[in-house]
Amino acid sequence: MTTEPTTPDALAAILENAAAAAKPLGDLRPAERGALLRAVADALDAAADELVPLAIEESHLTEQRLRGELTRTTFQLRLFDETLNEGSYLEATIDHADPDWGMGPRPDLRRYLVPLGPIVMFSASNFPFAFSVCGGDTASALAAGCPVIVKAHSGHPRLSQRVGEVAKAALAAAGAPVGTLDVVVGTENGKTALLDPRVKAGSFTGSIPGGRALFDLASSRPEPIPFYGELGSLNPVFVTPGAVKARGEEIATGYIGSYTLGVGQFCTKPGLLFVPAGHGLDELIVSTVAALEPAPLLNPRIRSGYDEVLDKLTAVAGVSAVVEASVQDGLSVGPTLVKTSLTNLLANADTLLEECFGPTSILVEYASVSELEEAAKAFGGNLTATIHAEPEEADSLHALLAVLRDRAGRLLFNGWPTGVSVTYAMQHGGPWPATTASIHTSVGTSAIRRFLRPVSYQSMPQELLPEALRDENLLGIVRRVNGQLTLP
Amino acid sequence: MTTEPTTPDALAAILENAAAAAKPLGDLRPAERGALLRAVADALDAAADELVPLAIEESHLTEQRLRGELTRTTFQLRLFDETLNEGSYLEATIDHADPDWGMGPRPDLRRYLVPLGPIVMFSASNFPFAFSVCGGDTASALAAGCPVIVKAHSGHPRLSQRVGEVAKAALAAAGAPVGTLDVVVGTENGKTALLDPRVKAGSFTGSIPGGRALFDLASSRPEPIPFYGELGSLNPVFVTPGAVKARGEEIATGYIGSYTLGVGQFCTKPGLLFVPAGHGLDELIVSTVAALEPAPLLNPRIRSGYDEVLDKLTAVAGVSAVVEASVQDGLSVGPTLVKTSLTNLLANADTLLEECFGPTSILVEYASVSELEEAAKAFGGNLTATIHAEPEEADSLHALLAVLRDRAGRLLFNGWPTGVSVTYAMQHGGPWPATTASIHTSVGTSAIRRFLRPVSYQSMPQELLPEALRDENLLGIVRRVNGQLTLP
Repeated sequence: MTTEPTTPDALAAILENAAAAAKPLGDLRPAERGALLRAVADALDAAADELVPLAIEESHLTEQRLRGELTRTTFQLRLFDETLNEGSYLEATIDHADPDWGMGPRPDLRRYLVPLGPIVMFSASNFPFAFSVCGGDTASALAAGCPVIVKAHSGHPRLSQRVGEVAKAALAAAGAPVGTLDVVVGTENGKTALLDPRVKAGSFTGSIPGGRALFDLASSRPEPIPFYGELGSLNPVFVTPGAVKARGEEIATGYIGSYTLGVGQFCTKPGLLFVPAGHGLDELIVSTVAALEPAPLLNPRIRSGYDEVLDKLTAVAGVSAVVEASVQDGLSVGPTLVKTSLTNLLANADTLLEECFGPTSILVEYASVSELEEAAKAFGGNLTATIHAEPEEADSLHALLAVLRDRAGRLLFNGWPTGVSVTYAMQHGGPWPATTASIHTSVGTSAIRRFLRPVSYQSMPQELLPEALRDENLLGIVRRVNGQLTLP
Repeated sequence: MTTEPTTPDALAAILENAAAAAKPLGDLRPAERGALLRAVADALDAAADELVPLAIEESHLTEQRLRGELTRTTFQLRLFDETLNEGSYLEATIDHADPDWGMGPRPDLRRYLVPLGPIVMFSASNFPFAFSVCGGDTASALAAGCPVIVKAHSGHPRLSQRVGEVAKAALAAAGAPVGTLDVVVGTENGKTALLDPRVKAGSFTGSIPGGRALFDLASSRPEPIPFYGELGSLNPVFVTPGAVKARGEEIATGYIGSYTLGVGQFCTKPGLLFVPAGHGLDELIVSTVAALEPAPLLNPRIRSGYDEVLDKLTAVAGVSAVVEASVQDGLSVGPTLVKTSLTNLLANADTLLEECFGPTSILVEYASVSELEEAAKAFGGNLTATIHAEPEEADSLHALLAVLRDRAGRLLFNGWPTGVSVTYAMQHGGPWPATTASIHTSVGTSAIRRFLRPVSYQSMPQELLPEALRDENLLGIVRRVNGQLTLP
């Protein structure tokens, strides 16, 4: 087990294998590919007692959290198996020839989605299972039929290597083509792979500067390719006076739990909580935050980045500490909470609306609920935005919600943005800088759409059509026939 | 009616109006937006006798062609009205809360697609109706709920202006927000609009260098935006010995008809026809091509570009003229046909696989059908690829078809690629350089997906949910509920 950068020869072989795997992997029936995903899920579950301790050692996250994350990861692989079997992800569409079509005779046309080809996936540090080697991007790309080259994150190199080995062994045993999945080590190797003409898309979870640099690289290729980057997010939460009155204590403790979860290292961490001035929750907040134990951040780079942004935040005039971190030792930090007024926030938006990745959040006190719409407009793209309000206030919230809808991929009511369920209706994405591709999601079953492109067949004989498009519905899938969605 | 570049003040107002129109246009019910599209279609049909002569004058295309193109254009607008009413384009998805969800309790999540915001559309020269001011990009963007700023093509400035006026009057009369559609004149104005932070996507139909430059501009913005460019395509056609034997004459005349259609100015023009050496069709081909009348190209720029590429083609050793253009006068040219061997084509692929926009095509003679797969691999991305074969040859064509599927958005059997029907299953797109975004189409009802992004609502009260996602299916649309596609 090595964590040295992949050698040039090894990288060349990985690229060659991925290119060679594209056709056989793509040619599998959806259910056959689903079986591969299930095999990977089973193997990872079976290796949990080996993998989780490795993840703890490298990420410093808790066992409970990491076991939960592994469950999420294998659940996700199995959910894509279900998606493949259900088959509507293929968008199979059949237009029979029609001599009376309104613009002139229509030929027989049949369209469905095919895999893009090999993908390079840059994994994240903060979810060593769910957004790493066998995480959501890999699961959705493999489901689509695209071989995946994972650029391992330097924060958990041995876990990456080991997860890769377990997954590759499971894939091989299940009959997947060589090259279906590989792991490369080293930033330059990741870039080299992204620039290789055989690679047809990139994906990434990480910082805004890192994601932007790779997006620029992907876009600048002689053949530009899609690059799906999930970058930064502030995840503002707006609390109405009615909500504070009805359940202020519950909101305060929920907020603190959410922003300190995983030592604040979630891309969906609530970075700002807007509350009415005079909320009367200071004492509760101080005691709740102060009671939390310090905990280690992921790695020294996260730690130094956190300190740097936190220093900038607290240096802004009008920003005061509600709770200052008790311990800042090695990687360990205690949670911090600062507060400011809405007026001061807007006056210093450039500094205060920068993501602080770690256990810090800003309590923003507003004078009147009428200011919230203006405050919401100060935000760029986000993964989430949340409103806490009472049901009888709903009618007054339409305008605020509309502003937030333009700026976020997921809108929550009386909840907390951390905890991203993997479902059919999940949207994990949002306008720039939350992502580089706001029209897609990186979590949930729709994530598969990123790795597929449409092909139409015109007047093609049955035997040359893919099974999904033949007259007989061989795959038993939903299809649109002459404009009508038709259940199997 | 002016065709002068839009003034800075006028451009500023157009951008402001488009930004202001985004919310009211997006907030309309799908059927209400559909009615706007229908109003534009009706107004254009009613103005046909004014618009068609203007189009003839500026484009030099025939009346029959332009009347057909206008029919296609208004049919397309009405087909998007139908798409809006059918409603599955919204991808409405509802997950009810589920305490037993496999990865842990699932909240109530509801996802659908919302408009991106204002779009800048760069129109094409060769389809003054169907890929211009009220063409496919505009129709699909308006259908999605996105205001459209059209950068008029300099090849038909007065028609662009007049179509814009007719459409804007129809939109205003039907109650559309001011700023729903506007036309700007001038390349620099188009770029300025594309770089404006209020603009959320760009679309384009035209040359590879032009499209690439705009793609680079869109990608380089502080907030990068999607850019949907439909660029160049060679549209190779592969004819088997069996097909030549069974219906060589029909194929020869079909080919000539297709590559000279619209004076060869189609992005789907068959640029190369692969036929077995010794096909015996030379005499027929010469007489058929020679009998065609010269016809004017669109404009002097198209003419000079055509001459330049044609000169390069014919200068290649081993390329000989089958028919040389009889007349090359002003804008008028007669069709040209050159031929070469497959071996020579592959040896000179850099020159011979450049698109020659105009009435020229290359007859490529091959020695053995076994060479075709290798020939197909020489191509980059294309809009289309075609096979002419006899049914009993189908079994031998799987490998060739697989190579072509990786390189084209539409695969035809025993047909011609010109004539792109607007349907549910049409794919007009393909890998680079056919487009800048191979995962989408610019023709057909799926074209709407380019201008939409997903938003999820978590635990949102009914009264704050959009109509598409409330418990009661208020729009009567297809929805996915707890993973199951559910017809209304």
